Amino acid sequence: MRYVSRNRPFVVRKGASSFPAFQKWNADYLSSTMKDLPVKVARTPCGNADSVLPIGNEGHVFIKPHEIEQPFRHVLEKIQEQELCPGRFAGPTCYAQTQNDNLRNEYASLFDDVPKSIPFARVALEKEPDAINFWLGNSHSTTALHKDNYENIYVQIIGQKHFVLLPPVESPCVNEKSLLAATYKPRDIELSEEDLIVQIDEPKEYVPFATWDPDAREQNGTTYSPYSRPLRVTLSEGDMLYLPALWYHKVSQTCSSEGICCAVNYWYDLDFSGSFWAMSNFVRGAGLVSLQQN
Amino acid sequence: MRYVSRNRPFVVRKGASSFPAFQKWNADYLSSTMKDLPVKVARTPCGNADSVLPIGNEGHVFIKPHEIEQPFRHVLEKIQEQELCPGRFAGPTCYAQTQNDNLRNEYASLFDDVPKSIPFARVALEKEPDAINFWLGNSHSTTALHKDNYENIYVQIIGQKHFVLLPPVESPCVNEKSLLAATYKPRDIELSEEDLIVQIDEPKEYVPFATWDPDAREQNGTTYSPYSRPLRVTLSEGDMLYLPALWYHKVSQTCSSEGICCAVNYWYDLDFSGSFWAMSNFVRGAGLVSLQQN
Repeated sequence: MRYVSRNRPFVVRKGASSFPAFQKWNADYLSSTMKDLPVKVARTPCGNADSVLPIGNEGHVFIKPHEIEQPFRHVLEKIQEQELCPGRFAGPTCYAQTQNDNLRNEYASLFDDVPKSIPFARVALEKEPDAINFWLGNSHSTTALHKDNYENIYVQIIGQKHFVLLPPVESPCVNEKSLLAATYKPRDIELSEEDLIVQIDEPKEYVPFATWDPDAREQNGTTYSPYSRPLRVTLSEGDMLYLPALWYHKVSQTCSSEGICCAVNYWYDLDFSGSFWAMSNFVRGAGLVSLQQN
Repeated sequence: MRYVSRNRPFVVRKGASSFPAFQKWNADYLSSTMKDLPVKVARTPCGNADSVLPIGNEGHVFIKPHEIEQPFRHVLEKIQEQELCPGRFAGPTCYAQTQNDNLRNEYASLFDDVPKSIPFARVALEKEPDAINFWLGNSHSTTALHKDNYENIYVQIIGQKHFVLLPPVESPCVNEKSLLAATYKPRDIELSEEDLIVQIDEPKEYVPFATWDPDAREQNGTTYSPYSRPLRVTLSEGDMLYLPALWYHKVSQTCSSEGICCAVNYWYDLDFSGSFWAMSNFVRGAGLVSLQQN
């Protein structure tokens, strides 16, 4: 409750070690539980969605993955194959990353292996989770720097996740731009599902998104970016991160020896009733105005 | 703890009814306990310190009271006399309002009648009070709109206090100005202590202070003042107010039938470790810059 109040992150090392998922989940267990149930998977040429993509005439676009439904075991195999046999692998990078409460829906057969809520979060936030998400990918996928309007409890089950974290007051550092939205699509769906090209969404839509990468500080920054002091934390198996609402985060991953990285996260609605939401947005807005004037 | 987190006030009606002070304090008790112990008292021509005073050449000054030490019973009598026999009374308005932890110092003989800390505040804030203050005045004194860098538990013991409250995000409404500091002084200390005049402090000092009065909305406002939506709350005997850090407050008072108004407040240091302090000051600073540009 005090950390929520201060909007400050913390890690509980091995905080999830009592979860059945922590004991039971591995490639075999996931495969034998999920079998060939259809799951949505994000496919990208290089593990780069949802993110900023430079393209010829448009400058940069906000690129979304090609999302298709495939049997779970097929997706798991593709993820492992790319990680373990990179020489043999060709094709898009797959990441099961639908953030639509998938663990209570398409992955429902795995949901018994995790708690329905995180007790300390339920008490602190006085809420049940809005969404519980299952994540399965490999080291080829990176989640670009972004923020969510949620309080987040992120639980690492298999492999490692590497977080770069920026507090909401650093919004003037991230060079937020309004980017034209685009989606990866197969070039010719009859010939191949594998060859993905960029297609601008119709009707045209613009998405506000961070264009600065804290791992490439010298590029695409604002006058404020040099002052950013990112926190870096790695979650290992069983670790639990409280990622406070509106914190920017970039996430990369390291696989277990089975070539997978698997996590679960709990999203709780943020508290809009105090001054935090209003003041954070004011800081963001003032930063944007200031940068337009520069 | 949740209210602190949201920086939102609340009142516990009769929350102090178990305090010995609530049962025991009245004019007789205060008089027989404090006797002629010397206490500091603030003296002003019309109950108007610390506040904004318009003066000829300087525009407005920040006026501080004439503070002297007098026997407690003399001060109590003056306060009662002004309230109960206004026709007979002449002289400055007296207000025992030193906010320097006086209840653990000059009023120490009354300190046994209140708790050493407020249990719910100690738990929520994880601190002991920085200062515990005793207040004794009458309806002629008003505390001008201001804010404190403290979490405040305000406990009404005798009479009523009337609060006008503005949240920190309304700082652009209060028309903060840098005012020349001045102090009331007796015109001629040999002839009379009663006739107070304004003396500019030496060396000259400037104090940032709210110059807008939410009870005179049309005067001295900024372009933002019309949007202010003050909260108003009256504390009666035994009521307890959580006045969150950085909230602007203006306080007036109504006396008991004995012609006194008496309160105690607990100041707890605010939590500077989260985003609240930084963002509140940013909002204040942005408001000041914006108003300079208008």
